[in-house]
Amino acid sequence: MKVSALGEFGLVRLFAEMVTRSRNKKVDSWQKLIIGIGDDCAAWRGDDAIQLAHVDSLFQNIHFTLETTPWRALGWKSLAVSVSDIAAMGGVPAYALVSLTLLDDNEVDDVEALYQGMIELADRFGIAIIGGDTGRASVVSITITVFGSMKGRRQEAMLTRSAARAGDKIAVTGYLGGAAGGLEMLTGKLKPDNGSASQLRQAFLQPLPRVPEGQVLVAQGVRAAMDISDGLISDLAHICEASKVSARVNTSLVPVHPAVKANFGERALELALSGGEDYELLFTAPEPVIDKVKQKLSCPVTIIGEILSGEPGEIRLVDSAGKPYNLPKKGWEHFKS
Amino acid sequence: MKVSALGEFGLVRLFAEMVTRSRNKKVDSWQKLIIGIGDDCAAWRGDDAIQLAHVDSLFQNIHFTLETTPWRALGWKSLAVSVSDIAAMGGVPAYALVSLTLLDDNEVDDVEALYQGMIELADRFGIAIIGGDTGRASVVSITITVFGSMKGRRQEAMLTRSAARAGDKIAVTGYLGGAAGGLEMLTGKLKPDNGSASQLRQAFLQPLPRVPEGQVLVAQGVRAAMDISDGLISDLAHICEASKVSARVNTSLVPVHPAVKANFGERALELALSGGEDYELLFTAPEPVIDKVKQKLSCPVTIIGEILSGEPGEIRLVDSAGKPYNLPKKGWEHFKS
Repeated sequence: MKVSALGEFGLVRLFAEMVTRSRNKKVDSWQKLIIGIGDDCAAWRGDDAIQLAHVDSLFQNIHFTLETTPWRALGWKSLAVSVSDIAAMGGVPAYALVSLTLLDDNEVDDVEALYQGMIELADRFGIAIIGGDTGRASVVSITITVFGSMKGRRQEAMLTRSAARAGDKIAVTGYLGGAAGGLEMLTGKLKPDNGSASQLRQAFLQPLPRVPEGQVLVAQGVRAAMDISDGLISDLAHICEASKVSARVNTSLVPVHPAVKANFGERALELALSGGEDYELLFTAPEPVIDKVKQKLSCPVTIIGEILSGEPGEIRLVDSAGKPYNLPKKGWEHFKS
Repeated sequence: MKVSALGEFGLVRLFAEMVTRSRNKKVDSWQKLIIGIGDDCAAWRGDDAIQLAHVDSLFQNIHFTLETTPWRALGWKSLAVSVSDIAAMGGVPAYALVSLTLLDDNEVDDVEALYQGMIELADRFGIAIIGGDTGRASVVSITITVFGSMKGRRQEAMLTRSAARAGDKIAVTGYLGGAAGGLEMLTGKLKPDNGSASQLRQAFLQPLPRVPEGQVLVAQGVRAAMDISDGLISDLAHICEASKVSARVNTSLVPVHPAVKANFGERALELALSGGEDYELLFTAPEPVIDKVKQKLSCPVTIIGEILSGEPGEIRLVDSAGKPYNLPKKGWEHFKS
């Protein structure tokens, strides 16, 4: 059935039914929910926590193509990227609003798969999808706003971009370059071995936001963090600019994704440094704090360099011998060619 | 200067500067703001109120054209339509997130005008614009999420679509059909007299969300309301469906916009019934409650019919003689042709 046959209100009813079916009465955000899909606004009981909100838009043929990203994965990923931003503040996600545009001839089955993917991610993190809008446009687009909160009102506990200090070490969770490697595989530029293929596919299509890991960072006293969406170096530059510090990264320490290392040869490091979309946490803290974080987390935590005073925003890359390393491309930016 | 020359981060900096300049330290939402544009999330101190959130997307050549809607008006209107939804719940808007897509060759001056229009509306209602994202796409689009709250946690006080009861009278604020008339004028289908021209232009390009009016409705005990965006009859049907009631509207009572009445002859009533985008409040309540609302509001409040039991969602239109009135087109719905 075509979207045009179901109509806007039919679609909204479909989404409302799917979301209602997915409701988990044990989850706090559903318990506090007063009004979800179907009225002018979504409403829930507030509390004394700091409230967090984030919005992200994904547009067809800009952020994704339907050739490389199946609808279900698109749903998962479009919510995951916003949840990742809540995680990177040290918050816990609670609610999401979904604004969707579709073409007249999109298949309802596909749109249902999209919502199913979102619901799976939402379920995993106890998020209630509470509304949004649905319209017609010349491209498929998904804009998701996620609301979350931090326990208590201690604003000092938040993980911000502006809290890096000279003397901090720079660390990342997990492995880098997997999403960029996955995209190259899905566009047919690479034929990896079977074991790598599923890892790379997962890294690009189903990133897992580091929500519990963000909580551990807060608990252990980390102050500066963000998620890696544009690429390690580009995002580190954001932290350095906001914190008015510079950074030195030892490229030999960067945790390149094993499947990328196995399949991309000399280009592996470049993908890890500037590939983007890994949604790992990039953070800075004194070394003893990072040591405590390592003990508490089951995922890899790797120190890759240090924060220095000096030219704000400047990133120096060096190899294991301390020699300068030149990066062809820093990361993703809209409008710049 | 072209958007492509400024770059994404240049645009974000521009928006951040514009918003920072517009900051009003006396406004509660700014006082409570912890982090605005420039980090992963926006954050503010919560309180014990009910929190409200709403998202709306406007797409070029679907919801607006740049031929009929100047950039500044587009900014005003794109925020106004979401604020109107907060008003229609009886809430007070507080924060907005703006997700924007632009073409490479959009002019920065135009984009600045867009933001200026948003800031003007935000200023008027004490709203802090606290973040969002900006990307490149094949069309201009604006997705705005607005957060608001209701004083206290009394969920019974909220204005919902599902609270209409048989025996209630149906009322609207202001005049209807002005926005649809304005659009016909701006597309060149109508050449009105000079006095009408500015009124129609204002009605289409600069709707004023009924925020204080929504507060009066709550204070006087109204329970069922929504804003008129799709068209009076279409939106009344939403209320009737959600409340499982039917409605009878006396078309001779509908407050047709004076400039529409003066310029559209026989079509005036049709524009008022199904034109949409007027952003007036449509509400139902026992007649004594509506009388109290009338006394408290300076804008027109007109009773146009009554809520009946019977087929849920059914709307019967009658003329002053009680004879059935047939409406050619009910209202706006995406995907339906």
